[in-house]
Amino acid sequence: MSERIEGRNPVREALRAGRPIRRVLIAEGTTGDAVGEIIRLARAGKVRVDRVPRAVLESSAVSRAHQGVVAEVEPYRFRSWSDALELARARGEPPLILAIDGVTDPGNLGSLLRSAETAGAHGVIVGQRRTAPITPVVEKAAAGALSHLIVDRVPNLGTALGRLREEGLWTVGLAASAPGVIWECDLLAEPLVVIVGAEGKGLSRLISERADALVSIPLKGAVGSLNAAVAGAIALFEVGRRRHPQRPSDGP
Amino acid sequence: MSERIEGRNPVREALRAGRPIRRVLIAEGTTGDAVGEIIRLARAGKVRVDRVPRAVLESSAVSRAHQGVVAEVEPYRFRSWSDALELARARGEPPLILAIDGVTDPGNLGSLLRSAETAGAHGVIVGQRRTAPITPVVEKAAAGALSHLIVDRVPNLGTALGRLREEGLWTVGLAASAPGVIWECDLLAEPLVVIVGAEGKGLSRLISERADALVSIPLKGAVGSLNAAVAGAIALFEVGRRRHPQRPSDGP
Repeated sequence: MSERIEGRNPVREALRAGRPIRRVLIAEGTTGDAVGEIIRLARAGKVRVDRVPRAVLESSAVSRAHQGVVAEVEPYRFRSWSDALELARARGEPPLILAIDGVTDPGNLGSLLRSAETAGAHGVIVGQRRTAPITPVVEKAAAGALSHLIVDRVPNLGTALGRLREEGLWTVGLAASAPGVIWECDLLAEPLVVIVGAEGKGLSRLISERADALVSIPLKGAVGSLNAAVAGAIALFEVGRRRHPQRPSDGP
Repeated sequence: MSERIEGRNPVREALRAGRPIRRVLIAEGTTGDAVGEIIRLARAGKVRVDRVPRAVLESSAVSRAHQGVVAEVEPYRFRSWSDALELARARGEPPLILAIDGVTDPGNLGSLLRSAETAGAHGVIVGQRRTAPITPVVEKAAAGALSHLIVDRVPNLGTALGRLREEGLWTVGLAASAPGVIWECDLLAEPLVVIVGAEGKGLSRLISERADALVSIPLKGAVGSLNAAVAGAIALFEVGRRRHPQRPSDGP
């Protein structure tokens, strides 16, 4: 059975990445630059494009915002985290992996994937038992990142983290209650796995016990927690900041 | 007409903040620590609590995740940004204001409000023409932050930013195309307004022309943009990092 990618960004990125696509459906009357680009990319990749009545898309859409564009694709192809290490080596960068331990909201999962891709992470590992599956809602929130990212789904996240440690990566988990704050963590420019836990519950006990370090993002307000996707993004871009080439400040 | 707050966190935070609440509805069979705390807070605040059949909540819920708890409240009370400056003075902190220029997705708007509150922003200004109204979906995504935050809705965001500059605040806008990167911006520890633009479109021309500085968050992947709520959170917590008391690093 084919799966679906819904929305302009996700479909465009799937085409750009050369992901196997059976056909693209575009609602009649849908126009604009993004749609024009999708049609051009589909032609270049010899992908069939069908115009269909908007009602056909409405009735079959899974996410709430297909924007008149849907692609029928092969099921998402997971890869191995070893490919992510290979990618880091090829780029000459210290590896950066995001590990997701139990994020169940598909919007948050997709948002984390988008943030990982834009922050320059080389791959993502999700524990398959406690984390949402890849659905059109996840693909939509990821805004195309899934087409460019190496994502591994593992039966046991703890085991995978152990093997990544053997490969020389540090494992750093986000935990709201950790006394060490992320701004002061020395490990972020090193080969690194950032671990994000579930909404509300945080990291599972086993994962937090096995991590090399737990760090918190200092909060100031009355609301005691960050959204899981936001916390992950802050951590990933703090890594990006540490690894950013230092230049003298240009001032305002 | 009363408005609604849906979900455990938002209702609990509304009670904690002493927000005017007509009554709290809890679906029959809904239990747990969070619900127990909501009932205790309601009693302490002399707020009526009614147990109702779950179907009653289902049929009237606006957001998708009321979690069996709804509060009927007075319409959200906007305040003046001058109250936010007053709050900063009272806390002895350089003011930090988030200005929102056209974020139309209610989930993103709520997420930005949550991030602003947790990052220690003193207030939020939204331009009323181009930004989503405060709905139960916004309140839900904000996870209670609206009950603790000073939020001003202004007819003209450009005018408000001009007055904040007269008060000594720097205005810094996030713009994907800006050559200056946020990690190198000198202004973040100063009295500051961070301006976040619309999903996709970014800042309006007028706002970006009037800002003291435009900065970008460096992206590395193939997906060319961040979610607006994620971009705002990264910027707000970068401000938090700059203002965080420096301590010698504790190491891993």
